[in-house]
Amino acid sequence: MPRIASRPETPQQGRLLRLLRDSGPHSRAELGEALKLSRSKLAHEVDRLTELEFVESGGFAASRGGRRSSIVRLSKHLRFVGVDIGATSVDVAITDGQLDVLGHGNAEIGVHNGPDTVLDTALDLLSKLRADGTAPDIHGAGVGIPGPVSFRDGAPVAPPIMPGWDQYPVRETMSQALGVPVQVDNDVNLMALGELHAGVARSVDDFLLVKIGTGIGCGIVVGGELHRGVSGSAGDIGHIQIEENGPPCACGNSGCLEAYASGAALARDAMAAARAGKSPRLAELFEKSGALSAADVTDAVSVGDPAAVQLLRSGGHRVGQVLASLVSFFNPGLVVVAGGVAGAGHSLLAEMRSAVYRRSLPLATGNLPIVLSELAAAAGVVGGARLISDQVLSVPRGIEER
Amino acid sequence: MPRIASRPETPQQGRLLRLLRDSGPHSRAELGEALKLSRSKLAHEVDRLTELEFVESGGFAASRGGRRSSIVRLSKHLRFVGVDIGATSVDVAITDGQLDVLGHGNAEIGVHNGPDTVLDTALDLLSKLRADGTAPDIHGAGVGIPGPVSFRDGAPVAPPIMPGWDQYPVRETMSQALGVPVQVDNDVNLMALGELHAGVARSVDDFLLVKIGTGIGCGIVVGGELHRGVSGSAGDIGHIQIEENGPPCACGNSGCLEAYASGAALARDAMAAARAGKSPRLAELFEKSGALSAADVTDAVSVGDPAAVQLLRSGGHRVGQVLASLVSFFNPGLVVVAGGVAGAGHSLLAEMRSAVYRRSLPLATGNLPIVLSELAAAAGVVGGARLISDQVLSVPRGIEER
Repeated sequence: MPRIASRPETPQQGRLLRLLRDSGPHSRAELGEALKLSRSKLAHEVDRLTELEFVESGGFAASRGGRRSSIVRLSKHLRFVGVDIGATSVDVAITDGQLDVLGHGNAEIGVHNGPDTVLDTALDLLSKLRADGTAPDIHGAGVGIPGPVSFRDGAPVAPPIMPGWDQYPVRETMSQALGVPVQVDNDVNLMALGELHAGVARSVDDFLLVKIGTGIGCGIVVGGELHRGVSGSAGDIGHIQIEENGPPCACGNSGCLEAYASGAALARDAMAAARAGKSPRLAELFEKSGALSAADVTDAVSVGDPAAVQLLRSGGHRVGQVLASLVSFFNPGLVVVAGGVAGAGHSLLAEMRSAVYRRSLPLATGNLPIVLSELAAAAGVVGGARLISDQVLSVPRGIEER
Repeated sequence: MPRIASRPETPQQGRLLRLLRDSGPHSRAELGEALKLSRSKLAHEVDRLTELEFVESGGFAASRGGRRSSIVRLSKHLRFVGVDIGATSVDVAITDGQLDVLGHGNAEIGVHNGPDTVLDTALDLLSKLRADGTAPDIHGAGVGIPGPVSFRDGAPVAPPIMPGWDQYPVRETMSQALGVPVQVDNDVNLMALGELHAGVARSVDDFLLVKIGTGIGCGIVVGGELHRGVSGSAGDIGHIQIEENGPPCACGNSGCLEAYASGAALARDAMAAARAGKSPRLAELFEKSGALSAADVTDAVSVGDPAAVQLLRSGGHRVGQVLASLVSFFNPGLVVVAGGVAGAGHSLLAEMRSAVYRRSLPLATGNLPIVLSELAAAAGVVGGARLISDQVLSVPRGIEER
């Protein structure tokens, strides 16, 4: 298996490895063409990657008339880990070199329990997954956090719903526990990377991923790369102000998008509807547990409760209002909608679409699909594996090509 | 002088030329370091560029202890042209290889006169500038248009204020008239390129340029490159809706940013203020000419007319409202404010800043300068020269490096 600390030694080796990761085994002839390398230069790079145990031979390709070209593929021992820390749960997956998920574990745990408890839970899940011998060695892990992250420092920055996490060295902690390279990013960016790698955005260079869950955020992909912005806060759209005198937001301001359309806002409005006697189903659920969540709204929508459908529509309209401006500004090729609330019902997506198609520039919406995430809950963990594999399968910084 | 149709033949030659364009003459030793080329490889590339007459020798550098290294500079015969077509005027400039302006001409002509008349005016201005022998040959021209442009086709697309321009082949027309490569883009994108090359955004990779003139638009630079979006409409923020039931906009919708804060909206509100007897200065100007323009508001602001100052403040507040959302979304390193209205007074900029600093995420505004354009009227023509020089000083497409 690839030595844990190995990294490719030339930019060509990195490109070759990422090509094998993204589109599977290739013949040497195909690799030479794709990378514009001569046969001898390619042979040299493949030999070196074989010595480093990143790649292996996969037999011979069908003849194209001349000598049969041998197949090169990623080592079948390569393993990446994706960790997706949500507000109320943790997901962990192990993938192979092509980022196909080999094993997946989940635990319900609130992020408010603090980093020590939550990261221990993630490590436990990973140990259980590895107990069957799926991943005797792993080569890196990518971790998603439900709040602002300093990508450079590998730590959360003043995350609003995460007591104890501010500046906590998540990257160092996980890297030391696992003995491999780790990268940390916010959960929405990882979902965007996941959809870019294996989901609905696979062939799209410029797209937005809008997550509507407990909070609301956006991942921005430009030219096939995440756009994080100069302070790493790009895509933080949950606190864009919709109305000056709107409802109060948890952030301290008022009229923010999240104060209208997040899971928390839905739960608040659902309780109001239950108390006001506007929804028999929500009232029934409220009576049972003494509180309501966004999931209860979903439940009520699934039985056709009109008040619940109206709540979801209203949320979709508000998100669509903000998205319409962003589409005019950014002119993406695709909008992917993800997150627990987004998955709740078609009425939310329909309202979002309607707001965007009505209000954005015609030139920007002429050919703009607005679709649900394909990977759903797996987007974050696949994105985590993608993030760290981008690092592990590239030359170390400083010897990059210019 | 460089042969007109020449192009660099290798990616290294392109990088070398753009480095000389952006940071002036360099010694061979410096070039070798910057481009990571061996002495012999560099000598080969410089020799070839000398044969193509793109570069020339500029004497010897001061000794660094060993043999003195000879200086390489761009040919002093290189000439680029920038053409900036505004709603009511045309600007043309000739630059040298480093895009320093050698000559500049301007004519008042409305874009509503149609492409034949306006482009002829631009060509006349250029002929006059060339009459003194400044530019016996030119090597390319970049043209800015005050409306949506298909960059790929080199033609305007349904520009709202430009009868006769829709799909007009501006690139082909100008290219045939001048016998050189031409590129066409919208005026705001070119202003952003101008500020990137020689203005306040010189060392900034990710920034926004907001132009407030007859219309309102935004240039987006990501990683030192223009972001045009999938249909080329990125940055078209003038028709972002601020209020559902706001004033009617020329586009047919209501409540658009331009309906509140463009030069046209200012003129409309100024006439209302004059008629209502709220502003002695505006009433006086209105009586003189029977109409008011944004420039009249500027005039009234300069003499301290309170109603005019209030108009400008109100416009700044509206632009700031939209900009606050875009800053949260995009997390730029700098916002440059340009255009005729923006230059009108500090009160507009102050209101914009206040709205952004109050409403955007603290993480996104912690270190975010919002400043006036440095190049002002020259930004468009320098940007035009930059746009075409990017093409002329690069290897033709298809033999680019991967």
